[in-house]
Amino acid sequence: MLKKLREQSPLIVCITNDVVKPFTANSLLALGASPIMSGEKKEADDIMKHAGALLLNIGTCSEDKIPLYTEMAARANQYNVPIVLDPVGYGASEFRKDLTDTLIRNYDIALVKGNAGEIQALGGQEGASKGVDSIFKGNVLKIAEAAEKLLKVPVLVTGETDAFVSSSEKLTMHNGHSFQEKITGSGCVLGAITAAFLAVNNSSKSIVHAVSLYNIAAKRAALKANGPGTFAASLIDEIYLFKAEDDKEKRVMHYE
Amino acid sequence: MLKKLREQSPLIVCITNDVVKPFTANSLLALGASPIMSGEKKEADDIMKHAGALLLNIGTCSEDKIPLYTEMAARANQYNVPIVLDPVGYGASEFRKDLTDTLIRNYDIALVKGNAGEIQALGGQEGASKGVDSIFKGNVLKIAEAAEKLLKVPVLVTGETDAFVSSSEKLTMHNGHSFQEKITGSGCVLGAITAAFLAVNNSSKSIVHAVSLYNIAAKRAALKANGPGTFAASLIDEIYLFKAEDDKEKRVMHYE
Amino acid sequence: MLKKLREQSPLIVCITNDVVKPFTANSLLALGASPIMSGEKKEADDIMKHAGALLLNIGTCSEDKIPLYTEMAARANQYNVPIVLDPVGYGASEFRKDLTDTLIRNYDIALVKGNAGEIQALGGQEGASKGVDSIFKGNVLKIAEAAEKLLKVPVLVTGETDAFVSSSEKLTMHNGHSFQEKITGSGCVLGAITAAFLAVNNSSKSIVHAVSLYNIAAKRAALKANGPGTFAASLIDEIYLFKAEDDKEKRVMHYE
Repeated sequence: MLKKLREQSPLIVCITNDVVKPFTANSLLALGASPIMSGEKKEADDIMKHAGALLLNIGTCSEDKIPLYTEMAARANQYNVPIVLDPVGYGASEFRKDLTDTLIRNYDIALVKGNAGEIQALGGQEGASKGVDSIFKGNVLKIAEAAEKLLKVPVLVTGETDAFVSSSEKLTMHNGHSFQEKITGSGCVLGAITAAFLAVNNSSKSIVHAVSLYNIAAKRAALKANGPGTFAASLIDEIYLFKAEDDKEKRVMHYE
Repeated sequence: MLKKLREQSPLIVCITNDVVKPFTANSLLALGASPIMSGEKKEADDIMKHAGALLLNIGTCSEDKIPLYTEMAARANQYNVPIVLDPVGYGASEFRKDLTDTLIRNYDIALVKGNAGEIQALGGQEGASKGVDSIFKGNVLKIAEAAEKLLKVPVLVTGETDAFVSSSEKLTMHNGHSFQEKITGSGCVLGAITAAFLAVNNSSKSIVHAVSLYNIAAKRAALKANGPGTFAASLIDEIYLFKAEDDKEKRVMHYE
Repeated sequence: MLKKLREQSPLIVCITNDVVKPFTANSLLALGASPIMSGEKKEADDIMKHAGALLLNIGTCSEDKIPLYTEMAARANQYNVPIVLDPVGYGASEFRKDLTDTLIRNYDIALVKGNAGEIQALGGQEGASKGVDSIFKGNVLKIAEAAEKLLKVPVLVTGETDAFVSSSEKLTMHNGHSFQEKITGSGCVLGAITAAFLAVNNSSKSIVHAVSLYNIAAKRAALKANGPGTFAASLIDEIYLFKAEDDKEKRVMHYE
C-alpha cells in the first residue's frame, strides 16, 4: 500500500492548526503524498475535486474558520473524499465541543482520531486532558469503544499504545515511543498520514499501516536523537526512509 | 522550581505569533509544561480557568485579533493568572504601539519582555530596532530601568546579556549565546518559558530561573550545532535534558 | 553582493503563507537579512517605509487577506521597494488565479517566481501541478519564456534546474538538489532569499546570486543529512556558513 501511495502521491487537503502546519506538510512530503493547505472556502470545490483525502484538525479553531471547515467537509462528502477529523482540545472548551459535534452530526467522517483525553470526552466520559498534548496511561481500547458506540464512526485513540475501533473491528497497536508525546503535533501528523493511506484505500487496513509506519519510524528516529528537537527532524527522515517491508515490524493485537 | 514545574506541568496559554508557534509549543513540552494555543475569544473563559499563565505575544498582530488579546487578558486577570506580554516589533508601527500601550494600561501584567530595541521604544527612548529580531550592544540594564520607571511593570530585556528590573530588584544575566539571535522566535520562546516558571511561582526568582535555564541550554546546544538550523533542534533537546542542578551554572549580577 | 547584504541587513517584509513562516524567517536570519512578518494592512506604510524588499506569497491565501496583499503592494510601489510575487498553487483554484492576476495587473512586480506547474499555468499553458510542491521534469526555460512573454514581468521557474527570463536575459541554473523538493517551503524560502538580494541590488545578477547560493547550500546540506528532516536543519546551517567566494561553484548557462 505504501508503494501505491508513493506512485499515486495523493493530494491531501490539510485544514489544520497553525502550530503543526510545517511539520504536517513535511511529513506528508516525506511519506510521498502531496499536501495542500487552504484558508479559503471559495476554493473548496476546485481543490476537493482532485483530493485524495481531507484532514480536518480543529486546533487553533475560531468562529471565522467554521465556514471553511463546513464547506471543505461538504465538498469532500460530495466527491467521496474520506475525511479524517482530529478534534484537538475537545473538552478544553465548549466552543471546541460544539464545533466537533456539529461536524460529526452533519458530515460523513471516515475516522475520528484523538488522544485519550479528547476521545474520552467525545465518548461522554469524564476527560482528564490538560493542554492539547495530554499524556495518558489508561485503557485506550475501552475509550475507543465507548466513543465508537456513541458516535457510530470509526475511532482511533493515539498514545504510547494506539487503539482502533470500528463497527466490525477492534485492535491495539504497540509500536509507539515516549518521545512522540514530547513533540507538538505528533498526533496531528499521524492524522495526516492516516488520511494519506485512506486516500489510497479507504479501509481499516490503511489505518493500521499508517499508525504502524509512524510508530516504527518514531522508534528508529528516537535511536538517532538526543532529545525531542533532534527527534522531530529524524522522524521526518525515517518516514522518508521507510520501506514497504519495514511494515513487518508492526505489533498489532486484534480483539473480539 | 524546575522539579515542581515538571510535576505540575502547568497549562500555558500561548496567544502568540504565527512564526514561532511550533518552536514555542515544542520548547514548553521539552520543559515539561502543557502548552495550548487558541484563536477564539469565546473559549477564553473555559481555558483560562485552568491556566497557569498567559503569554501574549503581538508579533503578526492584526486588528481582528484585538478582541482575542483583550478577552484572554481580562479572563487571566479575573482568575489571577500571570500575564507575560511580549510587544514584538514595538516601534516598528503605530499599530503595534497603540495595541501594546492599551494592553499595559488596561490589564495587570506580570512581566513585559522584549529585545533592547522594543523596550527602548517602550521606555520612550529613541529605538533603533530593525525587523523583529534586532541585535543590540548597548546597556540593557539602563533600558530596562527606563521602561520600568515609565510603565510601573516588571521589565525583562533579552539579548546576549539579559536585564530584569522591577520595583524592588535590578539584575543582569550573562549566560546567553550569539546563536540565539540567529534564530527566529528565540526571544518569543524565552517569553513562554518565563510564563511557565511564573505559573509555578509568581516571583522574580522564576524569571531568573527561566532566563538562566534557557541561556545555559543554548550554550550547550551551540556546542552540538554546525549553525543556527541544527542549533534550534539541539536547543529543544537541551531544554528537555536540563536538570535542576544545572541551574548552578547561572551567572547573575545584582544591582542596588 | 553577499557581503553588502550582511552589512546592510535589509528589512524583508514577508507576507507569506502559514506553512513556511518559521523556515522563511530562519533562512533570512541565517543569510544575514532582517525579516518582518505582518498581518495588518494598517502598518503597511510604517513598515514599508524602511523595507528593502517585499515578498508576497499567496499560499494559504484567503479573501480577508486580500486588503493586506494590496495595501502592502501599493506601499511597496510607492517607496520603490521591489516586490517578489510567489503565486503558490496558481492553477489549483480560480481564487488563486484571480488573486494573482489582479496583483500582476495592478502593481509593479520585480519578479514572479514559482514552480514549473504554477508558471506553466500562469503562462496560459495547460498545467499539471498537484498540491503546492509539484515535481517537474520538463523544459523549465520554455515555461519561463512563455510566462515572461505573456506577463511582461521577469520570471523565475524553480526546480532541480532553475530558469530565469526577463526582457533582456535568459538563463538556467544547475546547482539544485532533489531533497529541495522533499521539504515544504523550499521554493517559498528561495523567494525570500531572492527578495533579500534584490533589496541590495535590484538586478538580474541578484537573482542568479540568490538561486545559486540557495542551491549550493542545499547540496552541502544534503551531504550532512540522513533525509529531508535533517536536511532542512542543515540547509539553514549552510546558508549561515556560506561565504562570498563559495559563489564560484555556481553553474549558470546563458541563452540568446
